[in-house]
Amino acid sequence: MTTTGEWRAYLDLAHELADASAGVIMEHFRQPLQVIDKDDRTRFSPVTVADKDAETAIRELIRARFPEHGILGEEHDEENPGASIVWVLDPIDGTKAFISGFPTWGTLIALQEDDRPIIGMMNQPMTGERFYGHPQGAYLGAKQIHTRACAALKDASLFCTEPDMFAPGYERNGFDALSKQVVHTRYGGDCYAYCMLAMGFVDLVVEADLKPWDIKALVPIVEGAGGKITDWEGGPAGKGGRAVAAGDPILHAQALAVIQGAA
Amino acid sequence: MTTTGEWRAYLDLAHELADASAGVIMEHFRQPLQVIDKDDRTRFSPVTVADKDAETAIRELIRARFPEHGILGEEHDEENPGASIVWVLDPIDGTKAFISGFPTWGTLIALQEDDRPIIGMMNQPMTGERFYGHPQGAYLGAKQIHTRACAALKDASLFCTEPDMFAPGYERNGFDALSKQVVHTRYGGDCYAYCMLAMGFVDLVVEADLKPWDIKALVPIVEGAGGKITDWEGGPAGKGGRAVAAGDPILHAQALAVIQGAA
Repeated sequence: MTTTGEWRAYLDLAHELADASAGVIMEHFRQPLQVIDKDDRTRFSPVTVADKDAETAIRELIRARFPEHGILGEEHDEENPGASIVWVLDPIDGTKAFISGFPTWGTLIALQEDDRPIIGMMNQPMTGERFYGHPQGAYLGAKQIHTRACAALKDASLFCTEPDMFAPGYERNGFDALSKQVVHTRYGGDCYAYCMLAMGFVDLVVEADLKPWDIKALVPIVEGAGGKITDWEGGPAGKGGRAVAAGDPILHAQALAVIQGAA
Repeated sequence: MTTTGEWRAYLDLAHELADASAGVIMEHFRQPLQVIDKDDRTRFSPVTVADKDAETAIRELIRARFPEHGILGEEHDEENPGASIVWVLDPIDGTKAFISGFPTWGTLIALQEDDRPIIGMMNQPMTGERFYGHPQGAYLGAKQIHTRACAALKDASLFCTEPDMFAPGYERNGFDALSKQVVHTRYGGDCYAYCMLAMGFVDLVVEADLKPWDIKALVPIVEGAGGKITDWEGGPAGKGGRAVAAGDPILHAQALAVIQGAA
């Protein structure tokens, strides 16, 4: 098990990684960009120069400091496969928000031990907000943050990034059933929605079609703030796929029941 | 007709109104709020203390300086009905974004002459961004801004605030037909999406169910930056209802044709 002294050292490095990546990324934010489509037109997935260069900068800093650690990221190949301590990186989560000039994207940096994320960071350089979570709590900058109580779906707000992220059938039916029971549903959140949940301004974030680097860093932030986050069957969320995050653990159980009832 | 000297004086006042309202609003942003539902649950329309107090502060400043001007706002009764020069106010456009802690809401301040908006301002106090347009251009702070060229729907990005803003039939069919032709559709924009269009990072914003104060201030910003904004039939957008904004006027004509073809 990682000791407090060890994860504190990893957290210090995570702050350095966020600083370094912010410098690289902000040179490209709100500039005319050359966008390369990875997939076909219907699944618009832009990868910018900023994304690739920021991940390169982060990886160099990790390798220099902890060459034995694993690294898993969206933009480059896995390093040290099988390592117990692994950094999981998404330099720009919310690429559509980024290329549209919105300040709701973030740089996601997670550190996991044996598949369990123990440190998570979301850095938003334009607003100057840095959210992070670790075994002793969740923070925005120096300020500790907490989820809010919300024990009934009829009082809950629900976020997800976009309606098209749900496949027809199980995913679509589950999300729609939940959406009908909450007070309002809002789209366009990306990682920012999970951070607003951790701060106590959003009650539920329910998503699908996630990669591990889209979600891993958000687990310690949500859990450190007092919330609960799992996949749609109640298992660990960090592997990607489908996620249910709730600020109030009572609400989490209700949301899971509605989703599974609709399947 | 308003002279340049006159509208410059009105613009100076608009800056003062934005400063004053920001002070009132930011006392309440990211605080636990008492939310009052104006409508039923399915049309969640929160009005916060911040919204009402900010509009009161703005109205007092206008009355002190130009007591003969009309004032139309979301939160209080119309003043001086029938006046030629009218201020149109929405202290917090994007109330769902606001109560969810997101930085994508804005204070909208418009000045119209005989129904035509000649000055428009969108102020975002958290990010420190102030967008404004007038007969000589559009600006973010001191920097002049311009829309980008995008002459084909297949290359365009499309924004709107939420999918539920479109009524079944004409509105739903029109938006869906357009959405199928663009490279990607994104929700959760509010007034921020029009400003990103004015900056050249978004190509289309298409909405419905708008009140005059939701859209009036955005017209001089979009037009001042080189874009085109009308209702869904090509008439003035400022009256509310349905709006089509395009950064490239060529794209605007294409979008209108697709919407009307789907009706």
